Amino acid sequence: MFVPLSVLDFRDRAAAYFGEKVGVVDGEMSLTYRAWAERTHRLANALHDLGLQPGDRVSFITYNTHQLLEAYYGVLEAGMVLNPINIRLTPHDIAYILDHAQSKAVFFHRDFTPLVDAIRPQLSTRPVFVVMEGQRGGLAEHEYEALLGGSSTEPRHPQVDENGMAELFYTSGTTGLPKGVALSQRNLYLHALNAEIALRFDEDDVVLHVVPLFHVNGWGVPHFVTMTGGRHVMLRKFDPVALMQHVERHKVTRLLGVPAIFNAVLHHHDRPNHDLSSLRQLIIGGSPASPALVRALEQEIGVQAIVGYGLSETTPIVTLAQPRRVLTEAEPPERAAERQAMTGWPIPGTELRVVDASGADVRPDGEQIGEILVRSNSVMIGYYREPDATSVAIRDGWLHTGDMATLDDEGYVVIKDRSKDVIIRGGENISSVDVENAIAAHPAVLEVAVVAAPDERFGEAPVALVVLKPGAKASEKELKAHCKERLARFKVPREFHFRESLPKGGTGKILKAELREPFWAGLRERVH
Amino acid sequence: MFVPLSVLDFRDRAAAYFGEKVGVVDGEMSLTYRAWAERTHRLANALHDLGLQPGDRVSFITYNTHQLLEAYYGVLEAGMVLNPINIRLTPHDIAYILDHAQSKAVFFHRDFTPLVDAIRPQLSTRPVFVVMEGQRGGLAEHEYEALLGGSSTEPRHPQVDENGMAELFYTSGTTGLPKGVALSQRNLYLHALNAEIALRFDEDDVVLHVVPLFHVNGWGVPHFVTMTGGRHVMLRKFDPVALMQHVERHKVTRLLGVPAIFNAVLHHHDRPNHDLSSLRQLIIGGSPASPALVRALEQEIGVQAIVGYGLSETTPIVTLAQPRRVLTEAEPPERAAERQAMTGWPIPGTELRVVDASGADVRPDGEQIGEILVRSNSVMIGYYREPDATSVAIRDGWLHTGDMATLDDEGYVVIKDRSKDVIIRGGENISSVDVENAIAAHPAVLEVAVVAAPDERFGEAPVALVVLKPGAKASEKELKAHCKERLARFKVPREFHFRESLPKGGTGKILKAELREPFWAGLRERVH
Repeated sequence: MFVPLSVLDFRDRAAAYFGEKVGVVDGEMSLTYRAWAERTHRLANALHDLGLQPGDRVSFITYNTHQLLEAYYGVLEAGMVLNPINIRLTPHDIAYILDHAQSKAVFFHRDFTPLVDAIRPQLSTRPVFVVMEGQRGGLAEHEYEALLGGSSTEPRHPQVDENGMAELFYTSGTTGLPKGVALSQRNLYLHALNAEIALRFDEDDVVLHVVPLFHVNGWGVPHFVTMTGGRHVMLRKFDPVALMQHVERHKVTRLLGVPAIFNAVLHHHDRPNHDLSSLRQLIIGGSPASPALVRALEQEIGVQAIVGYGLSETTPIVTLAQPRRVLTEAEPPERAAERQAMTGWPIPGTELRVVDASGADVRPDGEQIGEILVRSNSVMIGYYREPDATSVAIRDGWLHTGDMATLDDEGYVVIKDRSKDVIIRGGENISSVDVENAIAAHPAVLEVAVVAAPDERFGEAPVALVVLKPGAKASEKELKAHCKERLARFKVPREFHFRESLPKGGTGKILKAELREPFWAGLRERVH
Repeated sequence: MFVPLSVLDFRDRAAAYFGEKVGVVDGEMSLTYRAWAERTHRLANALHDLGLQPGDRVSFITYNTHQLLEAYYGVLEAGMVLNPINIRLTPHDIAYILDHAQSKAVFFHRDFTPLVDAIRPQLSTRPVFVVMEGQRGGLAEHEYEALLGGSSTEPRHPQVDENGMAELFYTSGTTGLPKGVALSQRNLYLHALNAEIALRFDEDDVVLHVVPLFHVNGWGVPHFVTMTGGRHVMLRKFDPVALMQHVERHKVTRLLGVPAIFNAVLHHHDRPNHDLSSLRQLIIGGSPASPALVRALEQEIGVQAIVGYGLSETTPIVTLAQPRRVLTEAEPPERAAERQAMTGWPIPGTELRVVDASGADVRPDGEQIGEILVRSNSVMIGYYREPDATSVAIRDGWLHTGDMATLDDEGYVVIKDRSKDVIIRGGENISSVDVENAIAAHPAVLEVAVVAAPDERFGEAPVALVVLKPGAKASEKELKAHCKERLARFKVPREFHFRESLPKGGTGKILKAELREPFWAGLRERVH
């Protein structure tokens, strides 16, 4: 029997077997899975009432709100394509996305009214606008609650083509125009099952959605939380205190986030005043994490902390550094933090290779650096309406990630850099991540980024941009000495610059391109 | 990206990430996952060396041996179809199966040489015969180890059609000719993922394969054990002492079996001499289990015991009685054994309905009895070369199971009977299982079966066939009184017959048709 794969099954399962349980919490609002599922049916019917057709793209401009979680299923139940928008993009980029996606409806939270006002004149299409938590009027032809209130609770049964597009996420590339990652029901469904097998969420899990659900690290999570009857808690805006308050109040068990988020919590002066004992696991993604961060989180918060790695193009999880007892049982415990800070090993359903420039597999020696290739049912259909970009990314049956990594004989990969972040000093490749990890091990350092600066003698040389912990002190000389103990001489940064903070993108990822820019200004065109 | 679903991924994952671990134990033989995977490559190549073609059926006649576990992957790696044969069938039935399947190769354990000798003259085809653990010669043109030793270790990469037939299991129906259940890679792969999400096996699990892998309760298990890097321990022939010895020696964590197996262990006089403390979970399938059995297993062996339900046609698991804490946390603990003895609720990826004779859903009141229908990607392709039987079983997008059950408002189903085992007394439907559970609650009773006997006044009436525990005593009068306290008067058996044992089929399932027969002999034709 062939039944099309559909993530709507996850919602239906939650409503059928965990229906009376509070499944979604957003501020003071709590929804049982049954009530929430009914809202998704209403949304699906409302989209049809608005005149949209199966296959139409429906865009959402909002924080992590319950409405966005409703859209995860309601838009798909309507047979349409969900397009969550990164709210930190410029109006220009968002207008580009809405036009490129040819969105037929744009749902926006009232806080983004000025943004939407700025976007609208730039659009060549005429989508219907729906405001959430605001008043109808102006450009908003409809208000979300009124729309749902006026529509049927009867479930819809769309014709599902498991290989057709179901979600469309634009990557906020630091260079070039955003590209739309088209994901199918099959991508989403199989990713959810395989990620669940690796992570083992269950009905006792309470997940705080810290990372925006429109972002690579966030969007895979709702499906396996729903499938297993766990609880979603929405966090609209990140700040360390809000995070700790939510953890304490809702007894959150697991968090996924970038290192900067966990760093901010770890070093926050108010942390001892919050009960974080419900936390069981932290999953660190988005940027490389240091063993020092893993160790500090485990020791000071009393959780398991592991690194995960994924891409927009892979729905997203590719690897996790979940311990394998077959390896760890014979090892000293110190080794655990090192392993858990590695990029990890593939989740089920995922084949991974690391290849050199000629396409040959690197030696699995933990030394030779190559590009990570992925083959999996969680690799996207392709970039929407970008056949050329798609055929560059997916070649010979493998996704080419652009991430440079080593592979060891236990199957662990360690990302050494994005290809564009590698520093090339006199012909030697320097991984900026290796240098950052060495500097991060210094007790005074809160955050660090290492980038390539122009160098008369060597072409490029590493420079470090360092934020110290509140009240901590360290001189350039001291940090250089610290590096010399840990790194080959040619990898030691030429200069250290102390900063109050480092510029970050949507999910707290450090914007290295922005940090690199001043060093090169007026000097020459950067190729990257 | 579309990657055909294939259970070969599970083996490849085990070999890549748990390669140095002992994955398979069979008697004194231990194989690491890497060594075992290499043997599967050799088997795949050997099948091609024998001249077989992709799509050909390959039959195995053997106990639970490592060779059969190799065939699970090696035959599929060859692009062929695995057909494990129920060794308890008659030569006549096995000959029918080999002919119907048009097997091109028959692998048999040397212990079955007499059986194979008896089968061969009845065959209309001329498969190649390969003996395992025996000597080439006679009808065996090849010997397994020599065949593997002479073939390449190079992995083969078959063209996988995920919807094509990959495994073919004949049901040992008590009436009519065996029917071949054709399962696809998609059936097997998705069943394994969904069963794993429900059961949460992990690398620490050690599974003793008690139930034959050629049988409905056995064959789904190897895939999720392999996927998660657990350990397989083979049990060639069931007896309670061998089971306990294997559990003790290999620190077995989970067992799947029929109630009769667990009953035999529970009441075995030698049980206190074995350390069974490694056991964590027992999964009871194949026949209904009583709350008394669940409670006794939990209390006396110190495990969690839950019922599971599946069919040949569903790869096999449909439901499990895994506790849902959302229900159990507010309940008294006594209720747990009752819940865990219910047929359960669907595993992920499985839709279930209970419908009356008109096809309408029964009231979810735990009372009204209807037929279980299943819709899932784990429902078979169909009965091989039996389009008429297939279209009777799979109608309107649902598999019609023939199992009669109730449904309650928490989504639990409870099988009341196979439709053919229902006792119809003066127009009242009596579930033989309800009556059996009542009798089994008596402390002197080891095993019981209740069947329909002819009755002059009511057409049919229930009679009970009872085996008492060693040394225990109970009279017919006492058991009748016991039943009257627990059952409506019309359900109390008219007669009680005491037996030394009850006849059992391949997996220890009580053969009710055989028990019923003497009561009806010469009286009239039974329709069932």
